[in-house]
Amino acid sequence: MPQLSPRITQLNEGGSDGWEVFYRARAMVAAGTDVTELTIGEHDIRTAPAILDAMHEAAHGGHTGYAMVPGIPALRAALAQRLTERTGVPTTAENILVTPGGQAGLFSAHMAVLDPGDAALYVDPYYATYPGTIRAASGRAVPVQTRARDAFLPDPAAVSEAAAESGAKSLLINTPNNPTGTIYPQATLEALAEVCRDRDLWLISDEVYDTQLWEGAHLSPRTLPGMAERTMVIGSMSKSHAMTGSRIGWIVAPAPAIERLIDLATATTYGVPGYIQDAALFALTRGPDLEERIAAPFRRRRALALEVIARQDTVTAIPSQGAMYLMLDIRATGLSGRDFADRLLDAHHIAVMPGESFGRSAAGHVRVALTVDDARLDAALGTLCAFAESLTHE
Amino acid sequence: MPQLSPRITQLNEGGSDGWEVFYRARAMVAAGTDVTELTIGEHDIRTAPAILDAMHEAAHGGHTGYAMVPGIPALRAALAQRLTERTGVPTTAENILVTPGGQAGLFSAHMAVLDPGDAALYVDPYYATYPGTIRAASGRAVPVQTRARDAFLPDPAAVSEAAAESGAKSLLINTPNNPTGTIYPQATLEALAEVCRDRDLWLISDEVYDTQLWEGAHLSPRTLPGMAERTMVIGSMSKSHAMTGSRIGWIVAPAPAIERLIDLATATTYGVPGYIQDAALFALTRGPDLEERIAAPFRRRRALALEVIARQDTVTAIPSQGAMYLMLDIRATGLSGRDFADRLLDAHHIAVMPGESFGRSAAGHVRVALTVDDARLDAALGTLCAFAESLTHE
Ligand SMILES: Cc1ncc(COP(=O)(O)O)c(C=O)c1O
Ligand SMILES: Cc1ncc(COP(=O)(O)O)c(C=O)c1O
Repeated sequence: MPQLSPRITQLNEGGSDGWEVFYRARAMVAAGTDVTELTIGEHDIRTAPAILDAMHEAAHGGHTGYAMVPGIPALRAALAQRLTERTGVPTTAENILVTPGGQAGLFSAHMAVLDPGDAALYVDPYYATYPGTIRAASGRAVPVQTRARDAFLPDPAAVSEAAAESGAKSLLINTPNNPTGTIYPQATLEALAEVCRDRDLWLISDEVYDTQLWEGAHLSPRTLPGMAERTMVIGSMSKSHAMTGSRIGWIVAPAPAIERLIDLATATTYGVPGYIQDAALFALTRGPDLEERIAAPFRRRRALALEVIARQDTVTAIPSQGAMYLMLDIRATGLSGRDFADRLLDAHHIAVMPGESFGRSAAGHVRVALTVDDARLDAALGTLCAFAESLTHE
Repeated sequence: MPQLSPRITQLNEGGSDGWEVFYRARAMVAAGTDVTELTIGEHDIRTAPAILDAMHEAAHGGHTGYAMVPGIPALRAALAQRLTERTGVPTTAENILVTPGGQAGLFSAHMAVLDPGDAALYVDPYYATYPGTIRAASGRAVPVQTRARDAFLPDPAAVSEAAAESGAKSLLINTPNNPTGTIYPQATLEALAEVCRDRDLWLISDEVYDTQLWEGAHLSPRTLPGMAERTMVIGSMSKSHAMTGSRIGWIVAPAPAIERLIDLATATTYGVPGYIQDAALFALTRGPDLEERIAAPFRRRRALALEVIARQDTVTAIPSQGAMYLMLDIRATGLSGRDFADRLLDAHHIAVMPGESFGRSAAGHVRVALTVDDARLDAALGTLCAFAESLTHE
């Protein structure tokens, strides 16, 4: 076999650690063990039948040929209108590219702003694909570390310094945040926006959890002064409409950037199935009820989880305002997140993600996905806390 | 707006020419003119209702969550078995990555074998996305020119020379060919395979038309000695099953390359909808009948078209053995393909693609897609030939 490119062979190098727990849990399930899986960001419900029916109708109606690469005009227009209404920033179809999922949006945005070797900043802890996504775009992935006591929010001064040192072209942020569940406050976003303007950075703003809000409001940094022209927003139907498997998302960007992103989409994916776009359009135009119905279980379970955590003081929760996760500080046990997760899985058949799998900053933490029914979550968290407490006596 | 990367702004530079005819035709149709469109590779039928029903059933059955990034095991296994049976090369699921369309396969394969700046060879005339695909992978796109009198088949000596000169890492070929309709003969493939072995090139073999065969047989170069370990085959349901809009295809490659391609897929697309994979599996396991039914109209129309062409001698056809196109030599008119196509559209509302839109080699030609009903095709080709004949008296 001839050599593969170092770009692809080094994609996951020096990356996150601790995915073994996830795979071990999956293997235990496959072998028949009853594991409570609190690992990945997948709803415990399926896509609503009404959405699937809309898809089937579109397909049977003949929408099975190549769809236009930028996305079907009606969906682009609906997304633009939604954004205009929600953010107040005038947005047209020319600002929208429909992508096969938020992940494709993250990749394409970095392809658009980086040339090979260019540095790109991202905030640690991070969604697991981030460094690989930047490397796939031939970029240099530069993490900005954060601290548990700051709720893992990035320090704008540290971002500015990292940008200056690395000559970065872009900053990737994510609010509401996976894995931490925090929502960036307005002051943080304003300070980050200033850094972007001062250092001439593109801001890539991952907002795929923008319908999962438990406390406070979501502010898109694209609305801040001078930011619409330097921000690419990543959106997705995955989390808001329980459509993870349908692979549909979008990028919002200045029109000239979208034009070039369409060239890229022609070469990389050649568009998104028309009938899936029709289904997304149906789901979006059903209004906020459906979104609220999908967010509701996580809202309820987060409240429930915080109650369980409040009953003891070995494990503490990072303040969480959104998204379907809770980040727990288990440093009082003296274990790494990874060892804790490993031992919890073995002792109690409960699978959580080690903080280390999201980067260095979240060492000594574990992330709990709120993706099992309330009773089971209640029991699992009770067990987790008692287990942590027992470890402090070891 | 901060700068976009030269990589993305230069994606379509120095590329193909003559797409204006296509867009002009579309605009005429939109304005109500009755245009005979013989431009793009889109069937005049829709995806079979039985396939869409299988998809709906899978989706309603709950296959709407994230599917495994490499593809669902059953589809990978079915593709592997199909390949083993058809080619005699032992192929397992570990040799298969399911991709969101053949285009994503072409891009990913080049990402896997090129580092930024590496040269990649492709044969001119070419499918329109090829140079942009290589450039999107940060590669240097190096065309190998061919000649009409060789039916636009690549000369292995020229390929070898281009590889040596450019230091290329890969060669991209396409048989059955778009735009020419030729099938590479065994001798050509053997000589190209030898060049790949001698120059340590990856062979990227685009075989998306492998079920549209009118004369002779399709030989996959992956079956040639020493080639399975250096060939990536690009396959797709688009053309074989009239599923262009469903965006589903695959890469066949050595297992260690597939492992790395899975890393890349995680960062670029995160898999293909599970219900679409189920639909593809259904379609593939229905056997060759469905494929033959989809190929049949093109087989019939090609025969019909060759008859029309045979009645005159101003326009000549490049020998065609497969795929849904016919390449016509209109050099006797003294016009470029582009001028001919432009004037044909204005005078007779018939839209064909200028040869120039597929690269330099096919100047003075036009490509006819066999994608309208027989009577309409018959009439359009008659008109085209008469128009060409009239031009020789100008
Ligand atoms: C922060 C974040 N961004 C992006 C994605 C990707 O979402 P999609 O399914 O739209 O590709 C995820 C999925 O978990 C995520 O957590
Ligand atoms: C030669 C060739 N390769 C690849 C493709 C892409 O096919 P898909 O629809 O699977 O992306 C086409 C589509 O026209 C083609 O003609």
